[in-house]
Amino acid sequence: MSETKKRGRFIAFEGGEGAGKSTQAKLLADALRSRGFTVDVTREPGGTPGAEAIRKLLLHPPGEGDAGWGAKAEALLFAAARADHVERRILPAVEAGNWVVCDRFVDSSRAYQGGAGGLGDQAIVALHDFGSDGLRPDLTILLQADPDKVAERLAIRDGTEADAIGGRSAEYHRQVAKRFVALAEADPTGFAVIDGSADEDTVHRKVLEALEPLVAGKAS
Amino acid sequence: MSETKKRGRFIAFEGGEGAGKSTQAKLLADALRSRGFTVDVTREPGGTPGAEAIRKLLLHPPGEGDAGWGAKAEALLFAAARADHVERRILPAVEAGNWVVCDRFVDSSRAYQGGAGGLGDQAIVALHDFGSDGLRPDLTILLQADPDKVAERLAIRDGTEADAIGGRSAEYHRQVAKRFVALAEADPTGFAVIDGSADEDTVHRKVLEALEPLVAGKAS
Repeated sequence: MSETKKRGRFIAFEGGEGAGKSTQAKLLADALRSRGFTVDVTREPGGTPGAEAIRKLLLHPPGEGDAGWGAKAEALLFAAARADHVERRILPAVEAGNWVVCDRFVDSSRAYQGGAGGLGDQAIVALHDFGSDGLRPDLTILLQADPDKVAERLAIRDGTEADAIGGRSAEYHRQVAKRFVALAEADPTGFAVIDGSADEDTVHRKVLEALEPLVAGKAS
Repeated sequence: MSETKKRGRFIAFEGGEGAGKSTQAKLLADALRSRGFTVDVTREPGGTPGAEAIRKLLLHPPGEGDAGWGAKAEALLFAAARADHVERRILPAVEAGNWVVCDRFVDSSRAYQGGAGGLGDQAIVALHDFGSDGLRPDLTILLQADPDKVAERLAIRDGTEADAIGGRSAEYHRQVAKRFVALAEADPTGFAVIDGSADEDTVHRKVLEALEPLVAGKAS
């Protein structure tokens, strides 16, 4: 072990429901492993015992009726789960020189609670600054998806009932998609925007192309 | 029902573990009810189905070992629980003209996570401003307790194992007590500081004295 061990890389996939994030995260991890990297694939909300427990509360809010969480409580819970995930899993892995590939990160909170939920971007960023020292991925890959194809993919997720967030109105999800695009446009070096409507292999190839500069800089 | 129905009152009890907060909250509620007020007695963290679920996570953190929550995740979880509690229970009751008597509120977060936990007061107040629009009780009653008497009271709480927060070091709890005093000194009109070491009835009488101006202003 060298004391000057290089920091690893942190990659996040973002996008709406059914955009292919978890599939592409796995394909990317396999490709990176075949190049000799150690890769940790994780997801948000979740990724640690504490954050997974918060995930359950978020997706299946306690209490009767359809009240669910208010927007602010929801944003605070996401920030709490992320703080635990960053401190206990993401940062230790990256500092050990590994790659972390994460299905969703802070830009989901910015698009969902900040954008569609109406809390505004500044509030979400402030919570992230507090909880996770404002950690940004080395690259965020936004998978954009055709609404019709998404509906098809979501329909074949066997036995999965809509959760409290995925089950929100089409208008809510339109606002989410719009905000993701705005976030990517505002930070062109931090984001790669990829059309997720194509077949898996095509999308995967584009993901690898987008990552090439980071991979080349880290060849083992 | 008058459309100009008067706003109710919101009273919080604060203090360290075993200071007598829940006992005094109940005695106060009984006294107020005997004067004809409608009183809702509640507690933090908790008070709503969502906040009670967060309470379980806070007091019994998931995962193995003694890691527990990091200070920031803990502060975010308290703010999330409080946001739900304020929106769904405290404000609706107060707006309906009732009294709310709460065992702990935001000053516990300021004393525990902000003070003893080292996050600082500003961060906790900012989370409270975001989550609960900075709601303050009409009066906060700080029960100060003799450390020896507290140890005695805690020992006779039958079958109760220390939770993740109550079970912290004596030094942590000394810091909490110190910060409570500082908060009360900084806001003498918002706080009543009462010696909780005396017998229940004596403490209760002092609580009623401290509340007299508020009760008089709200006689039914």
